[in-house]
Amino acid sequence: MAVKPQSAFFEALGSDGVRAFEEVCAYSRAAGLVVIADAKRGDIGSTARAYAAAFVEPRGSGPPLADAVTVNPYLGRDSVEPFLDACRTEGAGVFCLVKTSNPGGADVQDAELADGRPLWQHVAALVREWGDGLIGESGLSSVGAVVGATFPREVGEARRLLPETVLLLPGIGAQGGSVADVAAAFTPNPASALVSASRSVIYAFRANGGDWRTAAGAEAERLAREVWAVSSR
Amino acid sequence: MAVKPQSAFFEALGSDGVRAFEEVCAYSRAAGLVVIADAKRGDIGSTARAYAAAFVEPRGSGPPLADAVTVNPYLGRDSVEPFLDACRTEGAGVFCLVKTSNPGGADVQDAELADGRPLWQHVAALVREWGDGLIGESGLSSVGAVVGATFPREVGEARRLLPETVLLLPGIGAQGGSVADVAAAFTPNPASALVSASRSVIYAFRANGGDWRTAAGAEAERLAREVWAVSSR
Repeated sequence: MAVKPQSAFFEALGSDGVRAFEEVCAYSRAAGLVVIADAKRGDIGSTARAYAAAFVEPRGSGPPLADAVTVNPYLGRDSVEPFLDACRTEGAGVFCLVKTSNPGGADVQDAELADGRPLWQHVAALVREWGDGLIGESGLSSVGAVVGATFPREVGEARRLLPETVLLLPGIGAQGGSVADVAAAFTPNPASALVSASRSVIYAFRANGGDWRTAAGAEAERLAREVWAVSSR
Repeated sequence: MAVKPQSAFFEALGSDGVRAFEEVCAYSRAAGLVVIADAKRGDIGSTARAYAAAFVEPRGSGPPLADAVTVNPYLGRDSVEPFLDACRTEGAGVFCLVKTSNPGGADVQDAELADGRPLWQHVAALVREWGDGLIGESGLSSVGAVVGATFPREVGEARRLLPETVLLLPGIGAQGGSVADVAAAFTPNPASALVSASRSVIYAFRANGGDWRTAAGAEAERLAREVWAVSSR
């Protein structure tokens, strides 16, 4: 067990941190895992094009860094378009932030619109529009939506608004959400919703003791069983 | 003159690109320039804390990467709080996206709220609130706002809504905005508004010929004279 103290962690940010990120992505894809880069990118068209190339398109003669990437909708359609292109040409996926798991998200996402909806439902409608024509044989769109498991009611509403959208559900574990809270996200297709957990897996040894790798593996397996039980109901 | 072709540029993204970014920041700060990292970050509190550390706090025993950083407001107060802390403790600055320069920004930022305002004006009010208590001796807040020079009317409205806020104005040059379009952004304090231009400076040699460094320098000086003429009126 060797965990860096916070100060050393922060020193490792920047190019060394990005190199570590690249290595983890490459290792994971080589092991057959689907990699979603939770980069939350949102920038004007020319920069968005470079971000799409960096995250989900082949790099030189090598494979893409990730299979999918998360994006922020605040800059609208042209900031997402290069990622949609990558969905079309590279089989990539994109997950757009809709209703995020953190408490502060309400400051902007719950702003009441003239038609009575909260802003996040307008963004959900944009996600559906952006995913038009990108629905695969599975019946699911390449354009997914991020909805916080910390808001169970909104998870259910998002599923009703986005019947063909893969919902990416952060907020289970360290942020306080539970698998039972997101049951409404699953359609009969078990790929219709993805549960993500980071700190509760990485730091499982703090709660459960023992070797950190064993603890992380056990917590990931425990969570996966819980998700399968709910998603296959 | 040696400019990498697009494909080589895209290969240089990732950790090598971030290393080049770090070198440009360090070189610029050592030369006495103020560096604003236009990273447009927006993430939950724990990740926002790491981003603040990476961009605007001292790195190990070295100086910060940048003096200020741009942030995306979609995740609300707790996603911005660590940057506000860095304003308090490190003298850093933060610029929040309010009305962006790209055409697609309207998809979300111009959504009409129940009180008749477009969403971006609600975000402007949040920026003013977040900057409370962070107004320096200059009379300007450490929390700035990004408003696209491509929307002159909104630039004027933003100035009225945010009298103590530094406005960062992208969109002049390659994106089609002009310095005359942003005259309303300047108060008697010439630091009240900052004009940013990237592609029109970097690629000035394409329009004007000659050595790319000479062309970039000449275009930057020309633009600076134009800005001074408008800001000191």
